[in-house]
Parts: sequence; structure tokens; C-alpha cells
Amino acid sequence: MIINGQHFHTIWVDENNPEIIRVIDQQKLPFEFSIKTLKTFDDAFSATKEMVVRGAPLIGVTAAYGIYLGTLALTESVPASDHLAQLCSKMKTARPTAVNLSWAVDEMYSALKNENTISELQKVALKKANQIKQFEIDSCNKIGDFGLPLIEEISKKKNGDAVNILTHCNAGWLACIDWGTALAPIYKAHQKGIAVHVWVDETRPRNQGSKLTAFELQQEGVPHTVIVDNAGGHLMQHGMVDMVIVGSDRTTRSGDVCNKIGTYLKALAAHDNAIPFYVALPSSSIDFSISDGLTEIEIEERNAEEVKFMEGKGGKVQIVPDGSTISNYGFDVTPARLITGLITEKGICGANDKEIGELFKK
Amino acid sequence: MIINGQHFHTIWVDENNPEIIRVIDQQKLPFEFSIKTLKTFDDAFSATKEMVVRGAPLIGVTAAYGIYLGTLALTESVPASDHLAQLCSKMKTARPTAVNLSWAVDEMYSALKNENTISELQKVALKKANQIKQFEIDSCNKIGDFGLPLIEEISKKKNGDAVNILTHCNAGWLACIDWGTALAPIYKAHQKGIAVHVWVDETRPRNQGSKLTAFELQQEGVPHTVIVDNAGGHLMQHGMVDMVIVGSDRTTRSGDVCNKIGTYLKALAAHDNAIPFYVALPSSSIDFSISDGLTEIEIEERNAEEVKFMEGKGGKVQIVPDGSTISNYGFDVTPARLITGLITEKGICGANDKEIGELFKK
Repeated sequence: MIINGQHFHTIWVDENNPEIIRVIDQQKLPFEFSIKTLKTFDDAFSATKEMVVRGAPLIGVTAAYGIYLGTLALTESVPASDHLAQLCSKMKTARPTAVNLSWAVDEMYSALKNENTISELQKVALKKANQIKQFEIDSCNKIGDFGLPLIEEISKKKNGDAVNILTHCNAGWLACIDWGTALAPIYKAHQKGIAVHVWVDETRPRNQGSKLTAFELQQEGVPHTVIVDNAGGHLMQHGMVDMVIVGSDRTTRSGDVCNKIGTYLKALAAHDNAIPFYVALPSSSIDFSISDGLTEIEIEERNAEEVKFMEGKGGKVQIVPDGSTISNYGFDVTPARLITGLITEKGICGANDKEIGELFKK
Repeated sequence: MIINGQHFHTIWVDENNPEIIRVIDQQKLPFEFSIKTLKTFDDAFSATKEMVVRGAPLIGVTAAYGIYLGTLALTESVPASDHLAQLCSKMKTARPTAVNLSWAVDEMYSALKNENTISELQKVALKKANQIKQFEIDSCNKIGDFGLPLIEEISKKKNGDAVNILTHCNAGWLACIDWGTALAPIYKAHQKGIAVHVWVDETRPRNQGSKLTAFELQQEGVPHTVIVDNAGGHLMQHGMVDMVIVGSDRTTRSGDVCNKIGTYLKALAAHDNAIPFYVALPSSSIDFSISDGLTEIEIEERNAEEVKFMEGKGGKVQIVPDGSTISNYGFDVTPARLITGLITEKGICGANDKEIGELFKK
């Protein structure tokens, strides 16, 4: 997508040196656009852990390139397969909740485990990481195409008045490589000339909504309004939201969706007001090994400092008094019963075992 | 209640000069404790509008003292009754949503409208404002007493393990004069030696939870944890919340509750997880003239700057990029169907016409 008029991906191999990976530094957006260089496995690991890159699909792709960078450091003296297993195992610990990380690491491991020479391992690692990246781009593009008719239909019912779509956190192209998940159908609609307006939840504590989603939408010229996370229910009660689309960090085979903390509250409000609530996700975000999102997904607890301090243009201020305990869960689980449908790269399906199973033949 | 070991009300008549009103400056808490002086009607009006004082009961009391201060400026040349009507009419515009403001102003007007001499008017105005203040203190005290058994009962069921209570915004003594509404039962329980723990929603955009509720609870030594507004649903899903108690800015005669934006989302989550959801309020917060909270209550829209910038210790930072529109509704309405009960100064009742009517005989 576009930043300052120029087309970008969130991550790419340097065009002059294939041993260097570049990423957009998402900690600095929206007030500073800067590119960070990853040269080692540890660079990629830290970038993920510290949220220089974030968003389920992007985390997976960064992990894949991280393992590729890890293979570049291999020497003949280390048995390649042992080292590869170590790298894969460590990379999975960078963030616990998004399943894309495990998925991408497992894809890399399967592709690489039988390579015997280091040079071949490195070659295949780069090729596979590029493939995973391309898979995510293609998936998001298709999610956009499948989601577009949902918006078009509402637009027709409203005789072309702007379709008001609420989203939580950032499930735009910055969370992916291009297009985004939740925002892909919105970009497709906007590009087709359908009037849309996006309610952007600021998404405390890290404000990926006001910092990243607002930035993305501005760059693409999509009308939007930033709101505090508390506001969505009121807007829905008063007919100001036509649909909700969010992303997913992990979806169970039965359709429970683990996504940024606060998503569940918006799903409840949508349900209470009979507003369609869609989740957009590539199949790399589906964890077919689990069924019950509430009991089977590990919810990341992040540092209290994220809540205690607020960073922005002008520095960092303290907003919770010393002496108060702080808790900071990163995600919550929206039960399948509250979800109207899943928008995937294979099409739209209900959030249940049967329809997910049929769509993905697993 | 206590600040730095000393007993305070949020508003009081200066002990040496009855023409001066003092208030705790709530814009500066928790990082600075300072007292602001109100000498004129305009001082009281601005303090309310700019949220130096806030919270439904405190707004009402400040309005009462503001009208008293207004009477001090009267001269023989102005017909007192005309001027009084003007003051009352203007004071009602300071904040639109909390009904206590109108209620207190109407109480003042009724008490004063038949006074003929300026000196008598001033004397009665001070007396009436003091009475309104005392009414709010007594009401909060009784709300505490009536709410206490609800907490005790849960404590017994948990064999004395801490009762986890979630609250939104600040409905503590800082929102009132003393005790608070939602926090009054919690203070009573804590003082009685019942183990309690409060989940404090930070309450964007003005963070009255992390800034005021956390401060209050710290000062009184009540265990608490600050969370982002997004977190409550997750905690409720995982059995970490035993009950919710919030305040109210306006309650209809049928039990719909207008309170700080985001309250509705917590009520939905409590309902979805079968957790009791109580609203604590003095009868001065009940608007007997209306029935349907969703259509009949004007929701205040506040300045976008409250969302765009975050103030704290260390200054003020910008957290939404220039060029994004911002919307900032101050309140939402929780439908009566989601409310377990209302805790009032007359007792606990269901959130419906019949029980409210019976309790208040209107």
C-alpha cells in the first residue's frame, strides 16, 4: 500500500543485498516513518518481541525471514539440522498468542529439515520465506475481494450513503504485508468508489488503532474517525455503525477468535444491536489443533509500563500513579456464537467446525 | 475521606470567610494535590465546565454554591428575582448530561425565589447549598451501608477470599463530597475488614479511573489494579470479577442508566458472564421526567483534544495523528435490562418503573 505516495510492503529483502531484511519500524509510526534493518536472527527475534513489527501475518513472515537470517550465520562446524531446530524453537517464544508465528516456523522447518548443505539450506530458506510472504499478500488480496460484496450490499441498502464500519486495533496492511485483513475489504470498496467511513478504536494500551490504522487510512485517503475504545457501544446503539470487521491472532477450528483485548466487548455490543460482526483472517491464523478459545489459548500478559506510560509526539508521560498495581492482558477471546462470519482467502464461512472444516478440507 | 492522612471533602466553605468556596482541583490529581478557590458565580461555572470538579453529585453541589456566590454579587439596583433566574438558567448549561446539576439548581431556585431582600437571599442561599451538600454526604453514606451486605455475601461465599469488584470511571468520593457512590460500599467493606480488590478501568479519554479512582483507593489503602478499558470482558470471562459497581450521571424512572462512556460495554460483559451489575446513585441522579434513556438523554460531546492528547506526569503528548477526525461522546446509556439493581440512599431496588416508584413514592 501507499506511504507518502510510494508503494511499500511492511517487510522486504533488500534489493541490492539479499542478506539484509528491511521492515517499517511500527513503534515510531505515525509521527515518524523509518525503516529498520534486520541482519541477524536476533534482530528479527527482537523486532518481533519489541513490536517493531506486529500483527499476526507480519509476525509469521518476520519469523520466516528471521530463520533465514539464522541460516546465514551457520558454519560448517555446527550440524545444520540441530541448529535449525534450535532457531525454530526459540523463534516460537517471541510472542505467544498469534498462531501465525508457529505456523510460519513449522513451514520453514518442514522445508529445511532435509537439506544437507549449508548453502542449499540458505537458498531454500530465502525461497520459502519469500513464498510465505507471497502467500500472505495473496491471502489478504483475496480476503479483500471476498469481503467487498458485504460492504457493497450495505451500500446499496443505504442508497450509496457511506457505510460505517467499526474496527478494533490494526488489522490493516501494517499488520500484514499488503492490503491487510480487516481493512482489505474496506480498501477494495474505497478503490471501487463505494463511500465508506471507518470508526477507528484507539486500542489501548498501545493505541495501534489511533497510531497505525488512522495512519494507514489517512495515507490511502479513506474517511475515518478515531474514537476511544469505550465509544463503540454508544455508536452501535444509535445506528452509527453498519458493520464491524476485525482481525484475528488465532482462530480455533470451531470459530472462537482470539484478537486484541477489547474485541469481545465490541462483539457483545454488535450482537446486542444486531450489527454484523465479521472477522477477517488468512488460514495461517487458524489453529486447527484447538477448539475452545477460552481455555486453550495462552493470553499474553505484557509489561505494565505499556499502561502506566503513554508515548506520543512530544515524548512520554506517566498516566497511572506510582503505587497502583497494573494488569496488562494483550488479547481476549470472542466466542464463535457472537461472530457473523469469517472472511478468509478461501471465501466467507460461519464461525463453526462444520463450515471451517468444509472450507479448508481439514 | 483521607488525603495524605488528613480528612477532606471535595468542596467546602472557607472556615474563615464564608464568601469563599474551596474545591480540590481534580484536573491536577493524582500527580499534584492542590486546592482551588471559587469567589464568583463564573468561577464555579468554569470549574464545572472545565472539570476542575466533576462527578454527578459534586457537580450539583458546586452549582448550588455557584448560585450562592452569584447572590453575593447582587446589588440593590438589580431586581433580585430576575437575576436569580438568569443565574439558574446559565448554571444549567455548564454540563448537559448529569441531572444533579438541574436538580440542585431547581432546589436552589425554589428555596430562593420568594426572598425579597438581598441579605436574606444570600443567607438562605448559603444555608440551602450547605443542605444540598449534606444531603449528598448522607446519601453516599447510606449507599455504602446498603451496598455493604452485597459484598459481604460474596465474601462469605468465597470463604473470605478477596471480593473482586470492577468499576468504571470515578464514582468515588471525589465524584461526590464524601464516601462516593459506587465506591462507598467498597470503603465500608474495607473498613469492616472484608477483603476486597478493585479492578479500576482507566476510563479513556480523561482517565478518571487511573487518575482519580486509583488515587482514592491508594489513599484509603484499598487493594486495586488498574486496567485498560478493553480488559474487563476478558477478566469476567475468566472468573476474575465477582461483581461490577458503577455510578450514574442520570437514571430514568424506568432504570436506564446514563454513565461514563463505556459503561454499557461492561454491563454487556457482566450480563454475558452472569456477573451482578449494580449501579450506585443518590436519588438526586434520578430524572423522574424521563423513561427511555436512549432517546431522551442528551449525550455530551466533548472536545476532540481530550482524545488527541494525553496529559500526565511529564506533560502532554499527542497520540492521534493530525488529519484524522476524532469523535468524543462523554456518556452512554446502559439499558435497565442489563442492571441487577440500583443501590440508593433509600435501599436497593430493581432497575424498573415499579420498584423505583415504590422506593421513592413518586
